[in-house]
Amino acid sequence: MSDRILAAVMPAPRQAIEIRDFPRPALPPGAALMRTTRSEVCGTDVHLWHGRLAGVPYPIIPGHVSAGTLESVRGPLRGIDGTALREGDRAVFFDVHRTCGRCRACTVHRTPTRCSARRVYGITDSATEGLFGGWSQAIYLEPGVGIARLPDGVDVDDYIGGGCGLVTAVHIIERATLKPGDTVLVQGTGAVGLSAIALARLSGASAVFAIGAPASRLELAIAMGADAVWDITATTPAQRLEAVRARTHGEGADTVIEAAGSARAIEEGLELTRDGGTYVVAGHYTDVGPSAINAHQQINRKHLEIRGCWGSEPRHFLRALLFLERYASRVPWRAVGGHTYSLTELNDALSDAEAMRITKALVDPWQ
Amino acid sequence: MSDRILAAVMPAPRQAIEIRDFPRPALPPGAALMRTTRSEVCGTDVHLWHGRLAGVPYPIIPGHVSAGTLESVRGPLRGIDGTALREGDRAVFFDVHRTCGRCRACTVHRTPTRCSARRVYGITDSATEGLFGGWSQAIYLEPGVGIARLPDGVDVDDYIGGGCGLVTAVHIIERATLKPGDTVLVQGTGAVGLSAIALARLSGASAVFAIGAPASRLELAIAMGADAVWDITATTPAQRLEAVRARTHGEGADTVIEAAGSARAIEEGLELTRDGGTYVVAGHYTDVGPSAINAHQQINRKHLEIRGCWGSEPRHFLRALLFLERYASRVPWRAVGGHTYSLTELNDALSDAEAMRITKALVDPWQ
Amino acid sequence: MSDRILAAVMPAPRQAIEIRDFPRPALPPGAALMRTTRSEVCGTDVHLWHGRLAGVPYPIIPGHVSAGTLESVRGPLRGIDGTALREGDRAVFFDVHRTCGRCRACTVHRTPTRCSARRVYGITDSATEGLFGGWSQAIYLEPGVGIARLPDGVDVDDYIGGGCGLVTAVHIIERATLKPGDTVLVQGTGAVGLSAIALARLSGASAVFAIGAPASRLELAIAMGADAVWDITATTPAQRLEAVRARTHGEGADTVIEAAGSARAIEEGLELTRDGGTYVVAGHYTDVGPSAINAHQQINRKHLEIRGCWGSEPRHFLRALLFLERYASRVPWRAVGGHTYSLTELNDALSDAEAMRITKALVDPWQ
Amino acid sequence: MSDRILAAVMPAPRQAIEIRDFPRPALPPGAALMRTTRSEVCGTDVHLWHGRLAGVPYPIIPGHVSAGTLESVRGPLRGIDGTALREGDRAVFFDVHRTCGRCRACTVHRTPTRCSARRVYGITDSATEGLFGGWSQAIYLEPGVGIARLPDGVDVDDYIGGGCGLVTAVHIIERATLKPGDTVLVQGTGAVGLSAIALARLSGASAVFAIGAPASRLELAIAMGADAVWDITATTPAQRLEAVRARTHGEGADTVIEAAGSARAIEEGLELTRDGGTYVVAGHYTDVGPSAINAHQQINRKHLEIRGCWGSEPRHFLRALLFLERYASRVPWRAVGGHTYSLTELNDALSDAEAMRITKALVDPWQ
Repeated sequence: MSDRILAAVMPAPRQAIEIRDFPRPALPPGAALMRTTRSEVCGTDVHLWHGRLAGVPYPIIPGHVSAGTLESVRGPLRGIDGTALREGDRAVFFDVHRTCGRCRACTVHRTPTRCSARRVYGITDSATEGLFGGWSQAIYLEPGVGIARLPDGVDVDDYIGGGCGLVTAVHIIERATLKPGDTVLVQGTGAVGLSAIALARLSGASAVFAIGAPASRLELAIAMGADAVWDITATTPAQRLEAVRARTHGEGADTVIEAAGSARAIEEGLELTRDGGTYVVAGHYTDVGPSAINAHQQINRKHLEIRGCWGSEPRHFLRALLFLERYASRVPWRAVGGHTYSLTELNDALSDAEAMRITKALVDPWQ
Repeated sequence: MSDRILAAVMPAPRQAIEIRDFPRPALPPGAALMRTTRSEVCGTDVHLWHGRLAGVPYPIIPGHVSAGTLESVRGPLRGIDGTALREGDRAVFFDVHRTCGRCRACTVHRTPTRCSARRVYGITDSATEGLFGGWSQAIYLEPGVGIARLPDGVDVDDYIGGGCGLVTAVHIIERATLKPGDTVLVQGTGAVGLSAIALARLSGASAVFAIGAPASRLELAIAMGADAVWDITATTPAQRLEAVRARTHGEGADTVIEAAGSARAIEEGLELTRDGGTYVVAGHYTDVGPSAINAHQQINRKHLEIRGCWGSEPRHFLRALLFLERYASRVPWRAVGGHTYSLTELNDALSDAEAMRITKALVDPWQ
Repeated sequence: MSDRILAAVMPAPRQAIEIRDFPRPALPPGAALMRTTRSEVCGTDVHLWHGRLAGVPYPIIPGHVSAGTLESVRGPLRGIDGTALREGDRAVFFDVHRTCGRCRACTVHRTPTRCSARRVYGITDSATEGLFGGWSQAIYLEPGVGIARLPDGVDVDDYIGGGCGLVTAVHIIERATLKPGDTVLVQGTGAVGLSAIALARLSGASAVFAIGAPASRLELAIAMGADAVWDITATTPAQRLEAVRARTHGEGADTVIEAAGSARAIEEGLELTRDGGTYVVAGHYTDVGPSAINAHQQINRKHLEIRGCWGSEPRHFLRALLFLERYASRVPWRAVGGHTYSLTELNDALSDAEAMRITKALVDPWQ
Repeated sequence: MSDRILAAVMPAPRQAIEIRDFPRPALPPGAALMRTTRSEVCGTDVHLWHGRLAGVPYPIIPGHVSAGTLESVRGPLRGIDGTALREGDRAVFFDVHRTCGRCRACTVHRTPTRCSARRVYGITDSATEGLFGGWSQAIYLEPGVGIARLPDGVDVDDYIGGGCGLVTAVHIIERATLKPGDTVLVQGTGAVGLSAIALARLSGASAVFAIGAPASRLELAIAMGADAVWDITATTPAQRLEAVRARTHGEGADTVIEAAGSARAIEEGLELTRDGGTYVVAGHYTDVGPSAINAHQQINRKHLEIRGCWGSEPRHFLRALLFLERYASRVPWRAVGGHTYSLTELNDALSDAEAMRITKALVDPWQ
């Protein structure tokens, strides 16, 4: 790798992605430089491009989930799971860093994803600070970042196909406290929803349903493990409610997972959950306005449990690796990543993602 | 007691309460007849009078929570806690009966308050079937009803002052899974809210806040255990949010309990809960229309837990008795019951409750 | 079916099984008579034969889990899941009956398996009362027994192969509150252990380990879903501890399930669980004497969670049916049932089970 | 304060405590020096003196819980609850430090008290490294230690009277997941047991029972909130079992907390817990050998939940401060600390604690 590193920079919302070169960073003790094999363009990157996330320090190098090879390591380096890491190892890292571990959110409430010091590669780190994003030939892993060896037998394309959606889905499934045999409905067939479908299936759900679009994603939903899917563009909420009840003793699903990000999905999802069931709200990373919720009919009388689920923690990241290691042969995560783009094609990648031509784009910065 | 029993009957919504007489019922094995010492007029009775509850089989004898003396007992009778009951005992009973114990709600989901066979004295039992309500000189306790001795030392006025609100609050506090030291905010200072305040205080909350009206109830809220109260008619939501945050490290309360029954309360309550906290929706026994909830700001990003809480189960009833036995000397439950009415004064009682001149009315059918 | 029904009766502990004939019972409303297609001989039956269970009202007709066809139904009959049942339907039933639903265990503590009124077909019902066991050509299903249609596509041999072990395992897995990705170790490869292995695998465990014997059951353990097995007769506790730690970051398994029934298994199981993990004790249905447990090393400092798991409830029974319906094609439950015996061969069946020549025997009372 | 600081050093197990002087430490950014107002001698210090804890780097300055005044502060200093701290502030600190926040125990399992990097003031820090214990005129608070202002109105004698026992009890009560109205039995009336009694009482237990000795501690147990106490030296286990059952519907307590540290206590405690109840093992910080536990009778058939509880976390420390702030006027924590000793009297303090003449000794290093 040369001393000049190419990266794709998002200068500001709605502006075209530019290729810039960066110097090879000096490494303090505990840091590493990772040669990027693959990164991703996911829905969050489209939101970043649209300027829908607050507090983003543009210009940024997007790409929060990436995989590569450890190019240089300064000093002994231990992975987040305790194993020793060396130059040449295939590696991945947990994009959330600088969680303080000392504030009230971290220690008193045990909600580290609400720590205000928390930063995320490719989202809340500025390109002015260095190589903190995956749309780059190399990524600077500062001391303290959670790094792990990519398990032997896990292909980078499966890892990135799962990507941030899989890690998010691990948290969702934990938060859903599924009991084996539960019926699960997933609203949304984007990257998060698809991985939630796979994990619900792998977690012993007796039936997994999904609502989404377009048809290609619904096919993928079935490949990921859904038993029945409904096209949101071709069915009405009343039809879907009837269909779900017909498969659940007339009750609705035990657990409904919202990974759709629309205000209407919330309204419908509460109906689709059985009395005494659980509704996990996990698709609203941006503000799309209010939902009209009837507290009597949809919460109080239903004796419902509604759980927001924000971000993820190291344990979700490590569990995602476990699932990939064990199940990538059965779950087509790589198919979630539709097409591989070079750094210079990233404007196209964003357009394709925005138009839902792909669920997620893979990025190969050396292509 | 004569063979003709007087009872106050609600013939239909919005019609005047009438006094009718009923024959003394024959008792099958396992049944009992209770001479009513005291019953109550609570907010639900006002709703019944307004016709706001669905499926009520008018005419009814209202009065779901009552206390009295066992006048006649047919065969050996065991209380819900296993103790033997005899004629002459002071007794109370759990108003919810006929929960089937066999349906999916009862057995699979363990949500017996959603059992469709469930009936409630004074609400879903018709006067055409007999003495199934407390606005009567005597109440028919059919076989299977959960009866308990009123603990020695508990005054009937404290029992009825707590009444259905206390039993509901026991369920709410269970559902809130309070941790000792939590900060708790209660929205609403009606009978449910007041008992929720008392139980939060007794359960080790480090601070209990309340929002309500009118001033008399806020004074009562403090007597029940609140540390700070805000008058909803004299403060704005923004002022209340600022005040609560000022007392909670800027975070909001760990747990917020909705016992207000208004659509706006839901919107405000979500704001008043800290990130990662718990919001219990327990005041919406009637449909007051939709709330506007922002899933991004109020659920997903907050990593919130929202729990509906419907009805109550025998264990809540028995726990209510435990609390009364132990704490009635410290908590002024009797003060929740403002005034005692005779059967012929119940139209006035309903008007007084509707106008919030009293929190709850006590009924003495022998006055 | 003739009016005389043949059944195999266990007259007393250690006495030979006898064939007796019984009259066809009269059916009160809500009752049914089931023609037995298949029943089982499980470890509990061996215990019954040895007289190791307290309070058994010998003579009994053993066989608590059975499948058959509804021969006669008196009045409309609804299954435990709400569906209508008719004569000629393939049916199964939940062997636990007469749980009262009213005592403190049932209502206050929500531990219905500790209800003292509870009775179990084939175990706590006497043959003097009628056809309350599966080693019989027909079984009397009294009003209130939880009956379900055997799902289409589920073979009786899979149902009985799973049998009581599967229902018990459903409860165990619920009680274990497994998180997807957990490592699970099962101690014991009898009928309960084998189903626990299958359910852990289906519930998203990242690795399932088992300790047991003999070799044939260890092979079956692998077929049921275990990733690694250790023969308890050929390895030492120290070797097993080392082997498990080598596969779990040196920590021990996240969850260990005891289905072995030996006092030594408890001692070893606590060692095999990681700090902060969960140990479920589910194999001690008989008293085999004390275990030596070091509270400092094995509970307190480990910050361990140990959970006893007794009996099962209707929801576990229904979930067992869901698992069979969905997964019998993947999990070889029928292989747990080693051999099919006629009523006259049941003394042999007990000897074979005692000698561990079979894991469980199938019974065909019409053979 | 002079530049030479006097401290009491425990040179090795079973050796007399010596007074040594230490230089005033240089402060790196984020560090502070606290002038000690009060420290404690608790049961753990007796164990340290007896050499019963593994891995202690003698010589040590004991005294893990202490209160004082911030003498010097280097750079801006924020308390663990986020507030700014300044020289002259009354301060307390969380004795557990260097928990890594990055290992599997910290991140994956969320059991930071099992982090192997964790160190504890006065126990696992050597006197060769500096002023890491409270039996000293000053304590070095290294960067990262969790410091908090001692709330106005909390007297140091109440703070130290509560001390480590109170923080441990906060964790125990959290781990016990008490429901308001539960009956609670505490085994042991040392510093931990006494605070557990107080917190159970404040957390809404309907009855709190205690078993302990000597008579003076049982009186204190009642003052802390126990309703009934039994002297372990004057009653038999059978008598205590009968007495507890007589007060709990014949069932045993809902929750039993072991804070006794004896192997026999474990055996008895399992009997004293009701079926389906919870048993928290929290008194075994040293190894006193095995308990004989019958898995059938005491765990499996009881459907019991047994939870080890090790150490404490910052949230327990902050909750302890909340309880002191709110309830020190009602709970006589200061009475737990029996007598105040100077540095030169600490050999006597250890002897008095060992002989149970005091529950806990207070230390005033300036006396």
